[in-house]
Amino acid sequence: MSPSDHVQAFRGVLGGAGVVDDPQRLASYATDQRQLFTGSTLAVLKPATTKHVAEVVRLAARLGVGLVPQGGNTSYCGGATPDDSGRQIIVSLERMDTIREVDPLSMSISVDAGAILKNVQDAAAAAGLLLPLSLGAEGSCRIGGNIGTNAGGLSVVRYGMTRDLILGIEAILPDGTIISDMRKLRKNNTGYDVKQCFVGSEGTLGIVTGAVLRLAPLPTRRATAWLTLAKDAALAELLALVRRESGELLTTFEFITAQSIALAAGAMATPPSVGSGPGGAVLLEFASSSRHLDLDSLMESVISEAVESGWVEDAYLAQSLAQRASMWELRETIPEGEKRSGGSVKHDISVPLSSIQRFLDVAGEQVRNYRADLELSVYGHVGDGNLHYNILVPHGTDRIEFTRLIEGSLSLRLYDTAAALGGTFSAEHGVGRFKRHLLEKYGDAGCIAAMRRIKAAFDPADIMNAGAVVRPFEPESIR
Amino acid sequence: MSPSDHVQAFRGVLGGAGVVDDPQRLASYATDQRQLFTGSTLAVLKPATTKHVAEVVRLAARLGVGLVPQGGNTSYCGGATPDDSGRQIIVSLERMDTIREVDPLSMSISVDAGAILKNVQDAAAAAGLLLPLSLGAEGSCRIGGNIGTNAGGLSVVRYGMTRDLILGIEAILPDGTIISDMRKLRKNNTGYDVKQCFVGSEGTLGIVTGAVLRLAPLPTRRATAWLTLAKDAALAELLALVRRESGELLTTFEFITAQSIALAAGAMATPPSVGSGPGGAVLLEFASSSRHLDLDSLMESVISEAVESGWVEDAYLAQSLAQRASMWELRETIPEGEKRSGGSVKHDISVPLSSIQRFLDVAGEQVRNYRADLELSVYGHVGDGNLHYNILVPHGTDRIEFTRLIEGSLSLRLYDTAAALGGTFSAEHGVGRFKRHLLEKYGDAGCIAAMRRIKAAFDPADIMNAGAVVRPFEPESIR
Repeated sequence: MSPSDHVQAFRGVLGGAGVVDDPQRLASYATDQRQLFTGSTLAVLKPATTKHVAEVVRLAARLGVGLVPQGGNTSYCGGATPDDSGRQIIVSLERMDTIREVDPLSMSISVDAGAILKNVQDAAAAAGLLLPLSLGAEGSCRIGGNIGTNAGGLSVVRYGMTRDLILGIEAILPDGTIISDMRKLRKNNTGYDVKQCFVGSEGTLGIVTGAVLRLAPLPTRRATAWLTLAKDAALAELLALVRRESGELLTTFEFITAQSIALAAGAMATPPSVGSGPGGAVLLEFASSSRHLDLDSLMESVISEAVESGWVEDAYLAQSLAQRASMWELRETIPEGEKRSGGSVKHDISVPLSSIQRFLDVAGEQVRNYRADLELSVYGHVGDGNLHYNILVPHGTDRIEFTRLIEGSLSLRLYDTAAALGGTFSAEHGVGRFKRHLLEKYGDAGCIAAMRRIKAAFDPADIMNAGAVVRPFEPESIR
Repeated sequence: MSPSDHVQAFRGVLGGAGVVDDPQRLASYATDQRQLFTGSTLAVLKPATTKHVAEVVRLAARLGVGLVPQGGNTSYCGGATPDDSGRQIIVSLERMDTIREVDPLSMSISVDAGAILKNVQDAAAAAGLLLPLSLGAEGSCRIGGNIGTNAGGLSVVRYGMTRDLILGIEAILPDGTIISDMRKLRKNNTGYDVKQCFVGSEGTLGIVTGAVLRLAPLPTRRATAWLTLAKDAALAELLALVRRESGELLTTFEFITAQSIALAAGAMATPPSVGSGPGGAVLLEFASSSRHLDLDSLMESVISEAVESGWVEDAYLAQSLAQRASMWELRETIPEGEKRSGGSVKHDISVPLSSIQRFLDVAGEQVRNYRADLELSVYGHVGDGNLHYNILVPHGTDRIEFTRLIEGSLSLRLYDTAAALGGTFSAEHGVGRFKRHLLEKYGDAGCIAAMRRIKAAFDPADIMNAGAVVRPFEPESIR
């Protein structure tokens, strides 16, 4: 069968509305979010139902056609991008975007995998509940992708990663077997927890078609502050103090360096009047659903302890919703600020909290030694030990060339440093196609052997997102 | 090779101190916690190091000897009990009980898998931190077993199950491959999260030898109350109210019926003066590490709202540590009270929170229809949708005979009811040997197919805890 026969066969399953093969419309699906790589796809399949997906997968297995599941196509690691063989077909879940059910008493929401994160947040909020998953791409990323990458984001310090939010799953295995476990249970110890396999597997073990997510009470009270840090502020110690004294009400502890603040402020129409101390700044937030707790007074007590410690120079407590929004906008505009300055080479590092300062010291020296004129944009979810350690593309330099250069040299030194401290080269962005060689280099050999076995058990023919994360067999060459 | 040659070969690896084969000493290892079944073991192996365990596993794989990993042997489902073939050997982790490291800044603790839960709690507390895993067996169960069963217990409503606490793992695969991923990271999205496979696998995929667990700030303030419930108190609605208004400070929401209270009180020297309302009672606790929150005042506000709702008749706020301890003792003495009354047939049900009341109604009728004189002891972690729905052994009836009778008849009706409501037959106790037929009956077919593939990928020869949870191949007959 020729490639066009393949496309025709899928049209037989999905109808005309379910298959896109106009080359112009295919391009954006075949290009990754960071526009570093454009693969090739015969077509984009758009199933509308779980049954569709199962039929597509069965047909693909029979034809030996590789599938690349795709949600919002916002992976930073090319996790949803086909290779350039021209033999893979993208399966987009975008037509499957139904909110199936909100169950307020069970504090759960059941959705199609193609539902956009923001829409799921909104549906939960309409029922007085919080979907505690929040990230930059929330307006376009989709739940299936959040599950596939075990998405993190801005609320992890309080609510955990996507893995911690998933109660039930519906998915299609590479041979068409349907996993149908959309239960809303907090506790269900009945054999291996199969849904865990899909979380973080980036579409390589099957296609997630639905999920049940855990909700939390919707915070109705918030206290938000901007702390500027002294020169040698001990970040981890400050976090420990804040975490302890805020009880479990801490929702945000975002670290931001002066350079990142300047980049973001430059990209805002009216940046807030908060700035950076010599040690950077922290965006701090407490939240609660209780009407009986005074969070402003709690924030004042915690800040006063933090100032006494000597680590905090100054603190601004948001006095209005507008001030709060402005502080948050500063934090969230950093990626846009980097983009406007010419882009950055991103490193999604995590280290144990006790090693954050050490990482910043060693990595800073590595960057200076590599090239004295490089500029950094460093910020991150320090409450989780996660630093976005980004190197700005120098003015007048080609972004893609510079990215390739850095990723082949300086990046590896930074990852070496993270690894030596018990850290990792990918905290929340995943592996995708771009970081597979890093997994081979830094991963535990026993873990990688186990991953290959899992992949081989689910997808022996390597049909699902082949080329991403891990192969079922030992590859002859990496990258 | 004869069985005694096998034992001799293991002695060559572990030395004399590492092998027990005195039949009298073997009996307690080969009998399950509930004393429902005694299997047969050639010997008990007691490795002292991870290297020992790897050598034992490699030798067993070579000899084709089945291994049964065992921690504190407290499984309620026979998960650590060998079969009666006489061909399996128990591997006890009890000599591997070292606390390897507490890292206060990273809020993590690294331990051998044989460490007793209570000792790990104590080591964390000595560093000013909380290991938020607490259950009846904590004085004798071991971390490896907690991981193997994804243990739940008394703190799940706030801190989650064991799965939510695990940051790193060290384990030996059935072919002797060592998984060595003892990292302390909150975030590490680098391929499939292999440690998740071991959580809840009850020793069927390998032997866990070490783990890194997440710690929380140690609560220094608590408010504890005993609520007696009105006749038609809506449990799930009450929970939603309490959860919302206590913010995230709720740590305990334990439901207890009048019968369970009476049983526990009867087994205590000086039971507290709290009792039950017509709808039972709830033990409620808030806790926080912050010095800046007034939990007593929060508790009073929440109770007053709860009383206004009409669901709560009366409330007792613990006024001293002694009163608090006494309320907790009442809750924790229920299993002993059941034992003294002649024992019980245990059902570890969970249903979606929105279906708890419905389950109680239908199940109560099923019990009455089955036999009018049966008495119940019902209590549970209702904050997680988990009910321990236990049927007391009638006086003068043989416990084991009665257990077999009920489990073959009434239990299945109760599980049918739970399943129809989207619930499960095992919330936190696991599957082990005793509930494998229930997994076959109630599990999703796709999930079971995936479990078999995972088992076959890790343990194709079915050497690890064969007979528990799931087999790598379709069994000819169950039970």
